[in-house]
Amino acid sequence: MFLAAGAAAAPATQPAVERWGVFDLALPGPSNGNPFVDVWISAVFYSGKQSITLRGFYDDDGIYRVRFSPPELGLWQYRTESNVAELSGKTGELNCIAPAADNHGPVRVANVYHFAYADGTPFVPIGTTSYGWAHEPDAMEDQTLVTLKASPFNKVRMQLLPGKSDALFFPYPDDHSRFNVQFFRHLERRIGQLSDIGVQADLILFNPYSKGTMAWFDDLDDAADDRLLRYVVARLGAYRNVWWSLANEYGQVKHKTDSDWDHFFQVVQAEDASDHLRSIHNAAKFYDPNKPWVTHASIQNGAAVSDFGRASIYRDTCRKPIVFDEVGYEGNLKVRWGDLTAQEEVKRCWLGTIAGAYVGHGEVISSPQGHSWTSDGGVLMGESPPRLAFLRKILEAGPAEGIEPIDEFYETHIGGKAGQYYLVYFGEEKPTTWTFALPRDPPAKNALAAGMKFHVDVLDTWNMTQTPVDGVFTLGKSVTYAFSAVDGAAIALPGRPYMALRIQRIP
Amino acid sequence: MFLAAGAAAAPATQPAVERWGVFDLALPGPSNGNPFVDVWISAVFYSGKQSITLRGFYDDDGIYRVRFSPPELGLWQYRTESNVAELSGKTGELNCIAPAADNHGPVRVANVYHFAYADGTPFVPIGTTSYGWAHEPDAMEDQTLVTLKASPFNKVRMQLLPGKSDALFFPYPDDHSRFNVQFFRHLERRIGQLSDIGVQADLILFNPYSKGTMAWFDDLDDAADDRLLRYVVARLGAYRNVWWSLANEYGQVKHKTDSDWDHFFQVVQAEDASDHLRSIHNAAKFYDPNKPWVTHASIQNGAAVSDFGRASIYRDTCRKPIVFDEVGYEGNLKVRWGDLTAQEEVKRCWLGTIAGAYVGHGEVISSPQGHSWTSDGGVLMGESPPRLAFLRKILEAGPAEGIEPIDEFYETHIGGKAGQYYLVYFGEEKPTTWTFALPRDPPAKNALAAGMKFHVDVLDTWNMTQTPVDGVFTLGKSVTYAFSAVDGAAIALPGRPYMALRIQRIP
Repeated sequence: MFLAAGAAAAPATQPAVERWGVFDLALPGPSNGNPFVDVWISAVFYSGKQSITLRGFYDDDGIYRVRFSPPELGLWQYRTESNVAELSGKTGELNCIAPAADNHGPVRVANVYHFAYADGTPFVPIGTTSYGWAHEPDAMEDQTLVTLKASPFNKVRMQLLPGKSDALFFPYPDDHSRFNVQFFRHLERRIGQLSDIGVQADLILFNPYSKGTMAWFDDLDDAADDRLLRYVVARLGAYRNVWWSLANEYGQVKHKTDSDWDHFFQVVQAEDASDHLRSIHNAAKFYDPNKPWVTHASIQNGAAVSDFGRASIYRDTCRKPIVFDEVGYEGNLKVRWGDLTAQEEVKRCWLGTIAGAYVGHGEVISSPQGHSWTSDGGVLMGESPPRLAFLRKILEAGPAEGIEPIDEFYETHIGGKAGQYYLVYFGEEKPTTWTFALPRDPPAKNALAAGMKFHVDVLDTWNMTQTPVDGVFTLGKSVTYAFSAVDGAAIALPGRPYMALRIQRIP
Repeated sequence: MFLAAGAAAAPATQPAVERWGVFDLALPGPSNGNPFVDVWISAVFYSGKQSITLRGFYDDDGIYRVRFSPPELGLWQYRTESNVAELSGKTGELNCIAPAADNHGPVRVANVYHFAYADGTPFVPIGTTSYGWAHEPDAMEDQTLVTLKASPFNKVRMQLLPGKSDALFFPYPDDHSRFNVQFFRHLERRIGQLSDIGVQADLILFNPYSKGTMAWFDDLDDAADDRLLRYVVARLGAYRNVWWSLANEYGQVKHKTDSDWDHFFQVVQAEDASDHLRSIHNAAKFYDPNKPWVTHASIQNGAAVSDFGRASIYRDTCRKPIVFDEVGYEGNLKVRWGDLTAQEEVKRCWLGTIAGAYVGHGEVISSPQGHSWTSDGGVLMGESPPRLAFLRKILEAGPAEGIEPIDEFYETHIGGKAGQYYLVYFGEEKPTTWTFALPRDPPAKNALAAGMKFHVDVLDTWNMTQTPVDGVFTLGKSVTYAFSAVDGAAIALPGRPYMALRIQRIP
C-alpha cells in the first residue's frame, strides 16, 4: 500500500500517489482544549471537472490529517478549510499515477448480484470471519496475517470495537469525548497490511458484544455515535480494501432502532468519498436490504445454504449481491452454529454459489490456548479452507459476470451463465451417472440451440480434483424444457457425495 | 351486500347504510360532450373529526355517482364539488348502522405477516385463481359463483381486463377517451356477488395477455392509464371485498417501467379511501415488495413451496404477508406449470402454511368445451379443493395470530405459535413414528418450560382425517435445543405421505 506523506501547502513538491492509493495530508494545528470536538478541518480535492470534499481528523500531537484516495489519474489540487485559521486555506497538488499491478481499486457491485474491482477485474468473494483478530497481541496478529496470506480468503469480517475487556486498545481513553489515537493507528496499520496481501477488510462498525468494555457504545448519545462514525470514515475511508458492515447481529443491539441504523448508514455514505460497500448483518431480525444505502445483503442463515433451492430466493426480492456471511462454522463447539463438519461447510459454499450468491467461511475449532480462528484469528486448523481454495480457483476461471441460477423456479442444481457455462452440483447425493441435459429457459431464452458443442469436467469438490470427460457433447433438439445431447449421452460419476460438473461451451 | 340508493341533496331522508357497506350517491348532470373527461365531481363525507374525500364517476345517461363505504358508525354528512354547477354544493346525510353478521369489513394486514378483517376477525386466505371468469357468458359466470360458494376458496384472483378478443364486454367502446359503462356495471355486479358469498376479489388491474383486444393498454398514454385507474377505484373502491393486484406477471408488460408501476400504485393508494390491500405479481422479475405502497407480497414461485425450508425466506427480507398466488396448477396440461397432481398442489399449500405464508390454488383441467377453472371459471374438477377445505378448517381453528415458522434457521418442518400451538408437517416423508420434541428457541424464547402439557392430533392432510393421540405429553427439561416429553414419548404414524401433527397446549 502506497502511503504518500503530504506536503503541507507546498505545491513545489508534487508527490506521486497511485490511483486508489492513499494521499495523507498532515498539517500542524492547535493541541490545546479538545481538538476532537473543538476543531474541524476539511479539504476539497479537484481535478478537471471533478471535486471531492473530505473531512480531516485529529491525530494527536498537534497534527491534523486529511486522507484522500484519488479515483482518477492526473494532477489533483487541494485547498483546506477549517474553523482554525492555521489549518485553513492550505493548498497543494499531487500527481495521481497508474496503480501497481496488484492494485485494482475498491470493490464495487457489478452485474447486479456480483462484484468487481474499480478497474473492472471481477472480484469473487471467498470470505472468512475473524471478529477479534485485530484486538490481539502483536505476535498473534502477525500470525493471522501469515495465515490469511496462505489461505483462499480474500475478505475478512472483523470488528472495529473489541469484544473483550482485556483488549490492548480501546477507541476511547476514558470518556467518549476524545479518541484514543493509538487504537486507530494500530487498526489502520492492520487494515493496510490486509490490503497488501489482497484481503478486503469487511469492518463491522457496531456489535452487541462489547458491553462492559470501554468500547461499549450503547450509552453513547447520538452526537457521540456520529462522531465515532465520522472519525472512522475520515481515517479509514481512503483505504481501498475497506467495506463497511454497519453491525453484526444488529437486532441484538438493544438501544438502537431501525431509524438509528438508517441514520448511521446515511452518515457513512455521506462521509465516504470512496463509496465503499455498505451492509448490515442480521440475527433473527433482518434489516431491509433494499434500502438505497445498502449495497449488498449480508445474511446469517445457515439453513438457506444447507439444501437446494433456498439461497436464490433472497435474490428474488433483493436485486443486490447476496452474501451469506454467516452460515454456521466448521468447529467442535457444542452449539449448533459451531459444530459443522468441514464437508457441510464446503457444501454450503457450493450451494450458495450455484444459487448465484456468495458464502463466507468460519472456524471455531478451539486451540489449546482456548482461541479459535473466528473469535481471535491465529491459525486455521480445519479441513474446509483447501476446498474453498479449489472453489475459488474454479470460480476465478469461470464467467467474469458471475454465476447465476439457471431456470431458478424449476432447476435447483444448476448455476452458471446460460448458453456458455454451467455448474451442476450434487451435494450429498451420490449419482453414478448424469444424463446430459441443459435447461432451455430463463434466465436467457434462446441461449441454447441444437448443434452447440460442450466440454465437461467432473469436479470432486471434496477431493479437489477436476477430470475432463472424453468427447464432445452436441445439443440435439429441445424436448420440453431441456436440450439433451444428440445421442442421449450420459456422464459416469463415481457414486461419491460432493461431486459437480463443469460444462463449458466449445466456441 | 347492502347498496343504498343515494338521496341527492335531500337531507330529510337519511338512508341507513351498514358499516363497510356502500352508499351510492347519484346526481343528475350534463350528458353532452365527453363527461368522462370534461366533468369531474368529488364529495367530502364527514363525521365528527373524520372527513373522507372521494372522486365520483360518470355512469352514462347523465348520471354521476360517488360511492362511499362508511368506516365508522353514526351520522355522516356530505357535500359535493364539481367543475359543473349543477353537480356542485350538493349536501346530504346518511346514517351508518351496525354491519350484518357476515360483514366484517375489508381485509387488512394483521400481525405483520397475516390478515384480519377490519372488525378484527382473522382472515385466513385460501385463494384460487380464475383469471377470466368475469368475462364469460352469464350462465357460466353464474355457475362459477355456485362453484365458489361450495368451495373452500375465500379469495379469487381475477382480471379486470379481458384476455380474449371475443369477450362480451370491453372497458372501452372504441378509442380510449370514453369508458364502456356496461363493462363496469357487469363487473361490479359480479364483485358484489362475490362479496355476498364471502369471497375476496383480488382484482388484477393490468396484465400482459390482452394484446390485440380492446382492453390492451400498452398503447395508452400516461393520462389514459391514470384515467382508467381512477375510474376503477371510484367505481369499485367502496366494495369491501376488493383487493388491488396492480398486474399479473408485471415484468412481461413490455412498455411499462418500474417507475410506471410505482406511479400506478401511488394513484391507486391516493384514490382509494378504503385503503384496500395492494400487491403486484411477478414472473421472472420481482417488484420490490418493501416499497411502502405494497401491502403484501404476491409471489409466483412454485419451487419455493415444493420443498421444506424455502418459503419462509421471503419473510426474512419482507416484513409483510407472503402470499404465493401462483405455484403451479393442478392440471393435465403438457406444461410444467399446469401438470401438478392434486397431491403436489395440496403439499405446496401445507409447506407454505408451516413457513408462515399463504398459498393459492389453481386448476387447469380442460373441460370437453376447452375451458378450465383457472382460465375461465365454471366448475372445479380436481381433487385438491376438498383437501384445501380441510386445511382451511384446521387453520381457522388455529391461533388467531396466524402460523409462524418455529426456529426458522434450524427447523423446517414446524410452524405454529410458540408455546401454544404447533403444526408438524411431513410432506412426502412417510414416518412411522415421531419422537415428541418442541424447539426451545426463536421466535419466542422461554415460550416453553418443563411441566407444560400438550395434546396431539394426527392429521392426514390427504385423507382429511384428524385422530386424537391418547394421553398427554408433558415437557421434561430442555436438552440442547428442544424440549422432549418426560418419558421420551413418541407418536405412532402410519407410514403414509402427507401426514401432519397438531400439538396444542393444555391450559
